[in-house]
Amino acid sequence: MQQRQHQKRVTRATESGWDGVAIEGYRPGDDAATTGVSRHTIVGGRKNDAGEPGPAMELRYFELQPGAASRLEKHEHEHYVVVRDGLGYAVLDDSATEIGPGDVIYVGPLELHQFVNRGDRPFGFFCFVDSCRDFSQPPSAEDLTRLAASPAGEVAKPFAVPPPQRR
Amino acid sequence: MQQRQHQKRVTRATESGWDGVAIEGYRPGDDAATTGVSRHTIVGGRKNDAGEPGPAMELRYFELQPGAASRLEKHEHEHYVVVRDGLGYAVLDDSATEIGPGDVIYVGPLELHQFVNRGDRPFGFFCFVDSCRDFSQPPSAEDLTRLAASPAGEVAKPFAVPPPQRR
Repeated sequence: MQQRQHQKRVTRATESGWDGVAIEGYRPGDDAATTGVSRHTIVGGRKNDAGEPGPAMELRYFELQPGAASRLEKHEHEHYVVVRDGLGYAVLDDSATEIGPGDVIYVGPLELHQFVNRGDRPFGFFCFVDSCRDFSQPPSAEDLTRLAASPAGEVAKPFAVPPPQRR
Repeated sequence: MQQRQHQKRVTRATESGWDGVAIEGYRPGDDAATTGVSRHTIVGGRKNDAGEPGPAMELRYFELQPGAASRLEKHEHEHYVVVRDGLGYAVLDDSATEIGPGDVIYVGPLELHQFVNRGDRPFGFFCFVDSCRDFSQPPSAEDLTRLAASPAGEVAKPFAVPPPQRR
């Protein structure tokens, strides 16, 4: 675990992100150029145990370049997503739904999901999660077969980004 | 507790709010005209126990008319706020900070706080909270004395909205 700094109360938006918040790759420490996805961890950070100091939840912002996608994955923890900019698809199990600014997406436990840029400029969204959460699981072979045969199969990008790092 | 409906996965933004989401007053069931604050509960709802079905967290959107403010209050649960529209102040203990679109505010446990519209058009923000949370506490007499003597005293509106309803 990295050392958790004192959590700022007000974090100002800037032209390129948020004041004092590093622009990272999809996985913390990665380079955004690898996957076309950048990550801004605005509040909090991952915990191994809920009793650790720091915010109970984590607020991230992800920006996907045209053609880029988040990881196709599933996990026990929930996602609460608010789209800020651009146009995308939300792949949720067998469905792919067009989403845009202001739309809100809830991803329930173990739902296979992915966010895909469907526009010609960056697609950005806030994603709120529990600080103390499980790591993501890749889709199973059955998941991939079912996905390919479903309407979401046209849109999903199963291998867009590498698996998570466990730290 | 009201019956919790199946949680929609994608909730679309509309001209006036979100598809299928009621525009309520500051307290669920209230009329927005009472306080100049409207509330949109987009995902989830309050739980008495974390084991109840439904999302673990709740995402609300609050819109404050010019001159309006959220409740000056404190509570054990944290707030994670993302400003979408308009200009406001975040009152956090003794400080009042100007905030605007894209700014993110974290409110820690038992920090006295209030959001105030400082512009001439609506000021709107998303607010994430735990679904299972304590009710808010009003400021103590000492809180109000300290606040009045602090820089935030110029901005805070101690009695802008009535105390919470306990259901």
